[in-house]
Amino acid sequence: MMRIKCIIAYDGTGFAGYQVQPNKRTVQRELESALTKLHKGSEVKVVASGRTDAGVHAVGQVIHFDSPLQLPEERWPAALNSILPNDVVVEEAAYVAEDFHARYHAIGKEYRYRLIRTKKSNPFLRHYAYQYSFPIDVERMREAIPYLLGEHDFTSFCSARSEVEDRVRNIYGIYIEEHDDELLFRFVGNGFLYNMIRILMGTLLEVGKGEREPHEIEKILAKKNRIYAGKTAPGHGLYLWQVYYEENIANDK
Amino acid sequence: MMRIKCIIAYDGTGFAGYQVQPNKRTVQRELESALTKLHKGSEVKVVASGRTDAGVHAVGQVIHFDSPLQLPEERWPAALNSILPNDVVVEEAAYVAEDFHARYHAIGKEYRYRLIRTKKSNPFLRHYAYQYSFPIDVERMREAIPYLLGEHDFTSFCSARSEVEDRVRNIYGIYIEEHDDELLFRFVGNGFLYNMIRILMGTLLEVGKGEREPHEIEKILAKKNRIYAGKTAPGHGLYLWQVYYEENIANDK
Repeated sequence: MMRIKCIIAYDGTGFAGYQVQPNKRTVQRELESALTKLHKGSEVKVVASGRTDAGVHAVGQVIHFDSPLQLPEERWPAALNSILPNDVVVEEAAYVAEDFHARYHAIGKEYRYRLIRTKKSNPFLRHYAYQYSFPIDVERMREAIPYLLGEHDFTSFCSARSEVEDRVRNIYGIYIEEHDDELLFRFVGNGFLYNMIRILMGTLLEVGKGEREPHEIEKILAKKNRIYAGKTAPGHGLYLWQVYYEENIANDK
Repeated sequence: MMRIKCIIAYDGTGFAGYQVQPNKRTVQRELESALTKLHKGSEVKVVASGRTDAGVHAVGQVIHFDSPLQLPEERWPAALNSILPNDVVVEEAAYVAEDFHARYHAIGKEYRYRLIRTKKSNPFLRHYAYQYSFPIDVERMREAIPYLLGEHDFTSFCSARSEVEDRVRNIYGIYIEEHDDELLFRFVGNGFLYNMIRILMGTLLEVGKGEREPHEIEKILAKKNRIYAGKTAPGHGLYLWQVYYEENIANDK
């Protein structure tokens, strides 16, 4: 058996999220079903760096699985892509150490959130960005960012449905880039809780609209209670952009 | 009654084309059903500059309809967009002369076709561009263009299912723009037949791949028979970009 690490991209529009759920179309199910076909019916389990919600996209999700097939590394993407539906694509594949783990070994992630400031919605972006018609003050949002950086207990920014116990995470950077009518939010950290980016986004937007003061972030964090943060922004603006590992994929055999 | 001209955009992915067909979701049906709701149940008929096929998009489709509602011009887009599904958007509206006709008065159209040269398909573009993995020589395609320009009987580039009798059209320009891995084809002419742009695209691609010579276009046109032209390229790369009228929409009262 060899362990294979893949970088995959998917359009989240047609999926009920990444993780397998009964009677739902999910990314994990498509991956496992493609792998099982490639292995002539013997079941292959896939482990991802983490799940993503319904409608959330990925450009650089990372998965691993084990296989007895001795395909040359560079043949794996084409072999899988020929079976996968066209809303999931294997971008790269590499053989890795047999103890490599896509989730446990991830040391950081970048998520991006696309916000379009518009009064008139663009039908081509309806699944790919949050089209926002209220005026927002970007500088106010930037003033809120320092309160979020570094290590904090992010319980207030985590879905109340989460069962994770340790809610301490370290955010390394939050960057807001302006491109024409688009605001691109980049969140880089050692890991993110369930719905965390979407709640951070919703809260930053409330700051940008003037409904909250930038310094209120400090109080929200201290409360450790989801009800004090802002609304959860829609999933379809969110992209899992990149997952970081200590090992470089190319040297990782 | 006042006649209203609108510029509309739609993502063709979820539609069985523009024109009403029994038991199919079409753009015309969504427009008429929104207008009928806005008119408290009295039926409103919509006339477009022309139909588009299943999967084909529009950025600047033009329609007209008549209404007794005396809404200020600038209120029409929001009034309709609040009822329409989010894959069809009214971009602009204007009151026009009561004999204005979206189809008969159109004097020209621009269509665009997005081709992405790639070995690995991008899941986010699967409905919005033709992702093409064969090597193509753009200069060869450019050499074929002069044979298509001007007035010709385009029967060879028209779906055999078309019932239109006059197949003479005038192509004013075909432009190929290169942007990174994207080739953007712009077709401007006085009108286009059923499937004409898609058959032109398919034929140009066969020239670009080296399967046909640029000068063969002349022979294909002379044959006046669909079987001599190339394959019909997929609809999802195609956009109805703009419709031209002699009247300027702003002065058109």
